[in-house]
Amino acid sequence: MILKTPFITFEGTDGAGKSTQIALLKEWLVSHGISVVLTREPGGCETAEAIRELVLSNKSDLGSRGELLLYLAARAENVRQVILPALEQGSWVISDRYADSTFAYQGYGRGLELVELMNLNAIATGGIMPMKTILLDIDVAVGKERVMKGRSELDRLEQSSLDFFERVRHGFLKLADTDSNRFVVVHADKSVDEIQQKIRNALTPYLHGHS
Amino acid sequence: MILKTPFITFEGTDGAGKSTQIALLKEWLVSHGISVVLTREPGGCETAEAIRELVLSNKSDLGSRGELLLYLAARAENVRQVILPALEQGSWVISDRYADSTFAYQGYGRGLELVELMNLNAIATGGIMPMKTILLDIDVAVGKERVMKGRSELDRLEQSSLDFFERVRHGFLKLADTDSNRFVVVHADKSVDEIQQKIRNALTPYLHGHS
Repeated sequence: MILKTPFITFEGTDGAGKSTQIALLKEWLVSHGISVVLTREPGGCETAEAIRELVLSNKSDLGSRGELLLYLAARAENVRQVILPALEQGSWVISDRYADSTFAYQGYGRGLELVELMNLNAIATGGIMPMKTILLDIDVAVGKERVMKGRSELDRLEQSSLDFFERVRHGFLKLADTDSNRFVVVHADKSVDEIQQKIRNALTPYLHGHS
Repeated sequence: MILKTPFITFEGTDGAGKSTQIALLKEWLVSHGISVVLTREPGGCETAEAIRELVLSNKSDLGSRGELLLYLAARAENVRQVILPALEQGSWVISDRYADSTFAYQGYGRGLELVELMNLNAIATGGIMPMKTILLDIDVAVGKERVMKGRSELDRLEQSSLDFFERVRHGFLKLADTDSNRFVVVHADKSVDEIQQKIRNALTPYLHGHS
């Protein structure tokens, strides 16, 4: 399936600044007359948000297969209810996390088979993959510190060990390396404005003809 | 993986009398000194019951891929948290619905690829399949009438058309035909006692050495 308008995803371990950068990117795109739909994973629509709550709850005590299948269910609904309709109406779609999070967290992080994950993901999404993926790469300890600021409790995922997040970070970088046409890697040791500038530079070629 | 004790599943469209027959079977097994753990799908443990609620809710407006993945997530958790631990402790496990419901409802009913469903199911369950499956076969209209008795509202699944349930019934019968060693088909036009007797006859060979 050929998408008419860009589908952009943001990836990276927590604390990399995805939300901030997405908000700034949206502002810029809107200033160019582009209609933008934001979504996030797991979540994005009512069903997927309910699944999100289930996954992130400390109580749920999920196994890795159960966790994976719930994420994929949420993604299937997000694609069907939000992403595809928005793209078909000519909006740009920006998703805070998507398929690469499954590959990095469940594959590199939890040790599930990468090829199996890619097949499952294709079933869940009907093969819809982003045109560009912005990977905000951050030192894991620095990211965790940022996330902790002003928070008293970590959710189930955030409580996982630093080791786990190191594997996830390494996984993201490997994915970016393998698919360097799609990925734009921006290291998060720069200022917010510098990072945003790099993102805008990478997306400028897509601006014309899509407004 | 070789299971030490029998894992039995009950299948069939709604109104076939699964709950009644399961209760009677349990009574009989317990009277033979056998420890029995009952479970149901979707559900069986706290996580899976939460997923069950999501799937059955009229509000959720699920697509067929989202529905499938949620069922599989619930099954993965039911296997991990309930079925495997019980079998490992030497209990018999009886599940009200399991993998064949996915093949019949999502495959024959909703038209998803059967081979794909079987692969996905194997991923969710780690390959755990029942030793015996009791298929209670019932005329779809008669089953629906039984379900409706004393109920004012149907859930999302029950609202599907009779056509859909005809396809599901036919699917169950085809599955039973293909795997006739595992399946015991009992037509539900007999009395409760007659049906139960057929089920007990089919399971008698497994009684000894498992008490």
